[in-house]
Amino acid sequence: MDKLLVLFTFSGSAIALIFALLTAKRVMRFSEGTDRMQKIAASIRAGANAFLKRQYRIVFIFFIAVFLILGALALLGLVSPFMPFAFLTGGIFSGLSGFIGMKIATASNARTANACREGLNKGLRIAFSAGSVMGFTVVGLGLLDVSIWLTLLKYVFKLSPDAIASAMLTFGMGASCMALFARVGGGIFTKAADVGADLVGKVEAGIPEDDPRNPAVIADNVGDNVGDVAGMGADLYESYIGSILSACSLGVAAFHDSKAMALPLLIAVLGVICSVLGTFFVRTKEGAEQKQLLRALSRGTNFAAVIIALGSFPLVWFVLGREHWLSYFAILAGLIGGVIIGQATEYFTSDSYKPTKKLAAASETGTATIIIGGLSTGMMSTLVPVVVICACVLIAYFVSGGASQPTMGLYGIALAAVGMLSTLGITLATDAYGPVADNAGGIAQMAELPAEVRERTDALDSLGNTTAATGKGFAIGSAALTALALMASYVDKIDSLMENAALQLSALSITSPTVLVGLFVGACLPFLFAAMTMNAVGRAAQSVVKEVRRQFRELTGLLDGRAEPDYATCVDLCTRSSLREMVLPTGVAVVAPVIVGLLLGWTGVVGMLAGATVSGFLLAVFMSNSGGAWDNAKKYIEGGNHGGKGSDQHKAAVVGDTVGDPFKDTAGPAINILIKLLSMVSIVFAAVVVHFSLF
Amino acid sequence: MDKLLVLFTFSGSAIALIFALLTAKRVMRFSEGTDRMQKIAASIRAGANAFLKRQYRIVFIFFIAVFLILGALALLGLVSPFMPFAFLTGGIFSGLSGFIGMKIATASNARTANACREGLNKGLRIAFSAGSVMGFTVVGLGLLDVSIWLTLLKYVFKLSPDAIASAMLTFGMGASCMALFARVGGGIFTKAADVGADLVGKVEAGIPEDDPRNPAVIADNVGDNVGDVAGMGADLYESYIGSILSACSLGVAAFHDSKAMALPLLIAVLGVICSVLGTFFVRTKEGAEQKQLLRALSRGTNFAAVIIALGSFPLVWFVLGREHWLSYFAILAGLIGGVIIGQATEYFTSDSYKPTKKLAAASETGTATIIIGGLSTGMMSTLVPVVVICACVLIAYFVSGGASQPTMGLYGIALAAVGMLSTLGITLATDAYGPVADNAGGIAQMAELPAEVRERTDALDSLGNTTAATGKGFAIGSAALTALALMASYVDKIDSLMENAALQLSALSITSPTVLVGLFVGACLPFLFAAMTMNAVGRAAQSVVKEVRRQFRELTGLLDGRAEPDYATCVDLCTRSSLREMVLPTGVAVVAPVIVGLLLGWTGVVGMLAGATVSGFLLAVFMSNSGGAWDNAKKYIEGGNHGGKGSDQHKAAVVGDTVGDPFKDTAGPAINILIKLLSMVSIVFAAVVVHFSLF
Repeated sequence: MDKLLVLFTFSGSAIALIFALLTAKRVMRFSEGTDRMQKIAASIRAGANAFLKRQYRIVFIFFIAVFLILGALALLGLVSPFMPFAFLTGGIFSGLSGFIGMKIATASNARTANACREGLNKGLRIAFSAGSVMGFTVVGLGLLDVSIWLTLLKYVFKLSPDAIASAMLTFGMGASCMALFARVGGGIFTKAADVGADLVGKVEAGIPEDDPRNPAVIADNVGDNVGDVAGMGADLYESYIGSILSACSLGVAAFHDSKAMALPLLIAVLGVICSVLGTFFVRTKEGAEQKQLLRALSRGTNFAAVIIALGSFPLVWFVLGREHWLSYFAILAGLIGGVIIGQATEYFTSDSYKPTKKLAAASETGTATIIIGGLSTGMMSTLVPVVVICACVLIAYFVSGGASQPTMGLYGIALAAVGMLSTLGITLATDAYGPVADNAGGIAQMAELPAEVRERTDALDSLGNTTAATGKGFAIGSAALTALALMASYVDKIDSLMENAALQLSALSITSPTVLVGLFVGACLPFLFAAMTMNAVGRAAQSVVKEVRRQFRELTGLLDGRAEPDYATCVDLCTRSSLREMVLPTGVAVVAPVIVGLLLGWTGVVGMLAGATVSGFLLAVFMSNSGGAWDNAKKYIEGGNHGGKGSDQHKAAVVGDTVGDPFKDTAGPAINILIKLLSMVSIVFAAVVVHFSLF
Repeated sequence: MDKLLVLFTFSGSAIALIFALLTAKRVMRFSEGTDRMQKIAASIRAGANAFLKRQYRIVFIFFIAVFLILGALALLGLVSPFMPFAFLTGGIFSGLSGFIGMKIATASNARTANACREGLNKGLRIAFSAGSVMGFTVVGLGLLDVSIWLTLLKYVFKLSPDAIASAMLTFGMGASCMALFARVGGGIFTKAADVGADLVGKVEAGIPEDDPRNPAVIADNVGDNVGDVAGMGADLYESYIGSILSACSLGVAAFHDSKAMALPLLIAVLGVICSVLGTFFVRTKEGAEQKQLLRALSRGTNFAAVIIALGSFPLVWFVLGREHWLSYFAILAGLIGGVIIGQATEYFTSDSYKPTKKLAAASETGTATIIIGGLSTGMMSTLVPVVVICACVLIAYFVSGGASQPTMGLYGIALAAVGMLSTLGITLATDAYGPVADNAGGIAQMAELPAEVRERTDALDSLGNTTAATGKGFAIGSAALTALALMASYVDKIDSLMENAALQLSALSITSPTVLVGLFVGACLPFLFAAMTMNAVGRAAQSVVKEVRRQFRELTGLLDGRAEPDYATCVDLCTRSSLREMVLPTGVAVVAPVIVGLLLGWTGVVGMLAGATVSGFLLAVFMSNSGGAWDNAKKYIEGGNHGGKGSDQHKAAVVGDTVGDPFKDTAGPAINILIKLLSMVSIVFAAVVVHFSLF
């Protein structure tokens, strides 16, 4: 059966990658439109390329450094000799996911705008296809990396399942590191450009969004690609393989058998097939309204979800064996849980529902009340996701037999995460299409296309906000479950490292001082991390503000359209400041588990992981949803409510939206990666902690 | 020795109460100034009295309900028959602390203003004396309640130390419930009035703060008294006895002997004596600058702290015995830890240091950047308090012998909390004097006293902001330590309830699903609680805004000073809305531990307590410090920096300050109480959970 498994995973990967390639070719056949559109698209492409090149150069140095450290540890016998290489490939594949996503996104933005000149449906098809390329590249590369390492370690080096699972977690760490760099760097870039462009352009100079006279407008569009696309690609690559690897590792610990490793992989393959099929359901008739567009997208994702729900039952039955068929409900809980979190996110952040409507109404009494309102909406929105995650944990744990054997229960939790992310191919497509539509709108505006084109891209964009909210729900929910599973993998790893002594669960009692102290430290990390990234956005944005003000002041005739702004300087400024700012937060995330481990011992590390997971989950939900609610409250007011565009209420809402930007697009999503990276680093350096810690 | 102990605690209580009484009498001898000042002071007094009366009426219903529930449980044998009565007295004494504090504060505000007509030193003396009355009333009543119950249970009913400690924790629960009502109700009142007065008066009508033409101005001043004074009094009463009771309870568990109960009580008595002596050092010469004023206050608190540090060594040596003398360092760690947290708070929130200066500079790029900056400053400021608490926990645990006997270590953590709060008499005096000075300034403005008077009250007030920040540091730090100690008391209580089975610490492993789920739920509670209280402030403030706008519109001649505003309606409006809004959050805090216990069992409750303590601590520090930094950034700009009063930068800073108001004065401090109340409720209802829970 094992050889069959490798065959299956390679095939799954091939299906995804070939589908992505064909879709990309189809997109490229469309025209980029007028000369002006082509020129704008080319500038955006050039800016995004330049950013990624410079970013990858910095990241490369980091990867070489960690590679050398891991190499040294391997020589000392503290980690397996495969780990340094696994670490590198994880980083490379994650970076590649982001790079390909960015390539296709920057190639299809003008094409989407051009297609919108003909009609909404055509625009949707191109934007969604671009999203699909990214979605299927991520899952395809993920499965490919897993397949290659599985083949190497199993058939070439003939390692035991335990050793395989452990070595493979290292490429999870590589992917997480890359993802964190991409999310933080891209997130700072996109928000610095956005805030800078808005503050000076919209608020001070009073020109519309995406106006070509604004010197930061190209940087803003570049930002959408490097942050929301490349960052998200690397991020979800990491989530995807993180959930699969933690399930594999816990499966081996529970069953001491590779069949438990097969299940998550096969679910992933099934997910690829269902997602491909689902994409064919995403189409709408011409003249469709926003509701129908949303229905078109939901039809695709729902189809995929239902088929996976049906198809994973026989998988569990035949792979794990009939005595473990109840584990099916762990997968189902994850799948349903993701949907519920997504819908709760939509409820709290979409202007079709009460919370965001009330938030928009708070603009009537000024800026302060809309800020307070957004913060409390975000905090309140943590309730449903927490309840869902708790329900998933309890269901997954107990149906998988955790009551009699805890490791089985923890394996169940990891399966729930795999279930939640199984439809990633298509959910990511609906998510990644947003920035493409957003860019298309920018190009339509800058190329001065007719108003109806902009209306169409706006319809696509606004839809993108809703699907992005849902996508974030999945990302956050799966991050929490994966982080818990990884925490369990860490405990398992420690258990295998403690030679003579059996691991005592009582050492992990939550009343133990090292666990408690770890809990405090871990819970503090997401707060510090959020503070650092927000400060970074603030600093970078202030430099953009100054540059844009300088150009408005010094380039005479800029506002009347007689002079061209200097776009490249703004792009370069954003690139330099975001790259400088991304190093510290990422560095802290990598170093913290090692320091905590050395000072407090492994029990402190477990406490830290639990604390970071819990507080990170809450903070990520809070920040993402506050940001989403502010964004849509502003859009709701722009739609003609509470005084409409230009009113004092609108100004108040713009402030809310600006505060929400680093919340929802920099700090919030980066925390998801942080909580998993902490566990991966802990696992990789477990032996170091066991040998050298003070406690 | 036991009888001597009771004698000592009664004497300590008597010293504190007599000192408070004498100080109060001395304050009352001063004149309230002009007719106009007397009239204004009388309106504030009347409003505050009316609020407290109505608040206590609602709270009374709640207390009777809980009393009946506890009575029923006592009849079923699930709680001790003393508990219902202990619960009532805790509530009554806590309420009394707030009431007396409010009485003296409303009596001394006009007197302080009047004294400031003669000089700064005289003003400081009166305001500080008023603060002292409150400080010593709190500690005096705290010790009195403990002494009475100790005598009753020990000498009248002759209970065992275990039973005594357990019954006494119930009056902690009563005090916490009262404190939460007072903090939340008063906090909503004060911030609704403040936000309402500022938004319409300062921002819309452009009249200065505390202008008598503003209809909400009396409500604003009433709010300072019912929120910052009465709320704080009840709050710190709760903190104070909470730390003592948890130490007593853990001491009995560790030593099975009443000597361990004696130590925290004797430290408290020592603290009273040192604090009384310390107050005599608080005086400054005429013409003193702000720095000298601060030094005068610090001299008092430092003196008290040093004497306690010296005096508690022999106490530990003789009471616990020389083999436990190392526990002294637990007390010392708490004492020093409190000082460090206070100083870190000052660093992050005072405009003498970089963070707040940089925050003020962020106003140059607009409202959004100052909001983002304040949020990240608050998040960043969590680092030092977390490190200090972690250090206190580890030091206290291990010096007290936790390595060999965990309960001893946990007793050490409780002793650290007692150490931190031992100087409460005088630190609370320096804290509570702030609102008095604030009110004095308001009266000076409304009574149109010469500008120099207002300058003096402003100097006192600004100093009050710094001491309040330090006071908050103590309150938050001690809350975290006390909450951890109470969590340990809960585990101990469960241990004693599990008849045949010995409690397995492995059941509390942080990887157990019920503990993990509890952790998530617990961590979510402070977020929900903050959201509810902030929403409540928002709703209440909006009703005030509408009323003030109505008066400006309908009462002709109000702005030219030809008509009198209708102050009473605003006070009544704040009273009604804050009382309505305080019920739900407090109710959730009381009900949550019981529901979690019934659904997840006692291990889930422990997880919940840990999660709530950790996330509540972080959230409280974050929110308090963000609020403090915004407040002082605004003051810094008002001091003539970044454009000064009336500039766009100032307007941006006012928005920040308004957002910060519910952060630092409603949600933040209430979370401190929440985390302790959750543990107290858990302990009191432990038997119910053990008997009826699903898990």
